[in-house]
Amino acid sequence: MKHKGNEEMNMQRYFVGDAQWTTDTVMLKGEQAHHISRVMRMSAGDVIICINGQGVAAYCRILQAEPDCITCQVEESLSSDSELPIHITVAQGDLKADKYEWVVQKSTEMGAGSITGFPADHSVVKWDAKKNEKKHARFQKIARESAEQSERLKIPAIERKASLEEVLKEAQQYDHKWILSERSARKDHHHAIDDALRQLQQTDRILLVFGPEGGFSTREHETAIDLGCAPVSLGARILRAETAPVAALALLVYHVELKR
Amino acid sequence: MKHKGNEEMNMQRYFVGDAQWTTDTVMLKGEQAHHISRVMRMSAGDVIICINGQGVAAYCRILQAEPDCITCQVEESLSSDSELPIHITVAQGDLKADKYEWVVQKSTEMGAGSITGFPADHSVVKWDAKKNEKKHARFQKIARESAEQSERLKIPAIERKASLEEVLKEAQQYDHKWILSERSARKDHHHAIDDALRQLQQTDRILLVFGPEGGFSTREHETAIDLGCAPVSLGARILRAETAPVAALALLVYHVELKR
Repeated sequence: MKHKGNEEMNMQRYFVGDAQWTTDTVMLKGEQAHHISRVMRMSAGDVIICINGQGVAAYCRILQAEPDCITCQVEESLSSDSELPIHITVAQGDLKADKYEWVVQKSTEMGAGSITGFPADHSVVKWDAKKNEKKHARFQKIARESAEQSERLKIPAIERKASLEEVLKEAQQYDHKWILSERSARKDHHHAIDDALRQLQQTDRILLVFGPEGGFSTREHETAIDLGCAPVSLGARILRAETAPVAALALLVYHVELKR
Repeated sequence: MKHKGNEEMNMQRYFVGDAQWTTDTVMLKGEQAHHISRVMRMSAGDVIICINGQGVAAYCRILQAEPDCITCQVEESLSSDSELPIHITVAQGDLKADKYEWVVQKSTEMGAGSITGFPADHSVVKWDAKKNEKKHARFQKIARESAEQSERLKIPAIERKASLEEVLKEAQQYDHKWILSERSARKDHHHAIDDALRQLQQTDRILLVFGPEGGFSTREHETAIDLGCAPVSLGARILRAETAPVAALALLVYHVELKR
């Protein structure tokens, strides 16, 4: 059967591992199966949207719904593409857990391709290495749920580096590198971000580096600039650490997706 | 004595009612006095920044610090202006308290001139009128603290209307009215916001209308458009209710403050 575009509205979306797909069926298990059968109370005949590891989304009609296993018939694929053409990495100096989770959720909504955490000189929280695995799983879950909710086709990669230097070591992978810092806001670099935005090409890879609550240390700020980061400002007001990524991503979305 | 611009960095800021000022002194009391003397542990000779009701900021040197009363000598005024030339009103359909408080804090950081709440058709929370006064005071405190932290010279006005219609009744005060909604994101109105941004003049007044968690009802969406709101999209991804105001304000800041 043919699915209309408006059916897509508010239709439940699930990212499903490639191993769970055949050419014409898809199987959802565990937490996702529970969500479909118990939380959403869906049953045979209902339609969901499933997305595979390559970001291909398809309408899938439930054939059999059990609490721990949902089997679906794969119908036609969706045409709409909600992914940005550019790849944006948000590198965020460690914040308190709730703020960091918030950055992961919002950066995912705004289209980030990957989110990398690192301990910054002024980071108040010191992450316990023993807890890293647990934290990583939690951030991945937040990114997956946020990607489903915002109707994305890809889940941002959640990564971790040992320091700002480690983040910048990989900087040659990127066409553009920006450091967003209080200093820039105070030093009237107000047009720097416009110059940087005008250089963007649709297929570029861009690295955005954000400081922790206390901002970057002078050492970090100088290191970033030495390693090719352009210092850019988001305006004359001082933004909280967790606010800056959303504002910066909004400008990138505007330039690649909304601008004529 | 002469104050250097960089002294301004991380200097504590306080909004002080006009009644507490004389030509050459300013007096801080209550919570602010407690913050200065106990939290910040400042004493005679230390310098703070005080801002009056007209948005004039001055370096003020503490003459006498008591737990409940701080007397300062008013020194020179600050030159920097962190206020946007345009006036932006964020009209936000009622959200759960924590999300709404978040919108107040972030909209203040991003430069909003006023923030107006209203009950929307799909608002999950129904505000208890008895609690309105308490809530209003709480939102004003969040706006004041956020304005101090982001180094603004004005505190956004916190207002409340009985419905979206009430908000739009005053729409003639505005040069531009936008409704930001999921529908726009799904209907490929992707260039509408660019057309709207290009019409902005530096001294314009603009009204931004945002829906609650559930989005706008068809009735509200049509009413807004009938009353002259331009439907605009913030991109191909569906943003959570509390994310949209930050993203929209970022684009306005870019257009009036950052763009060459």
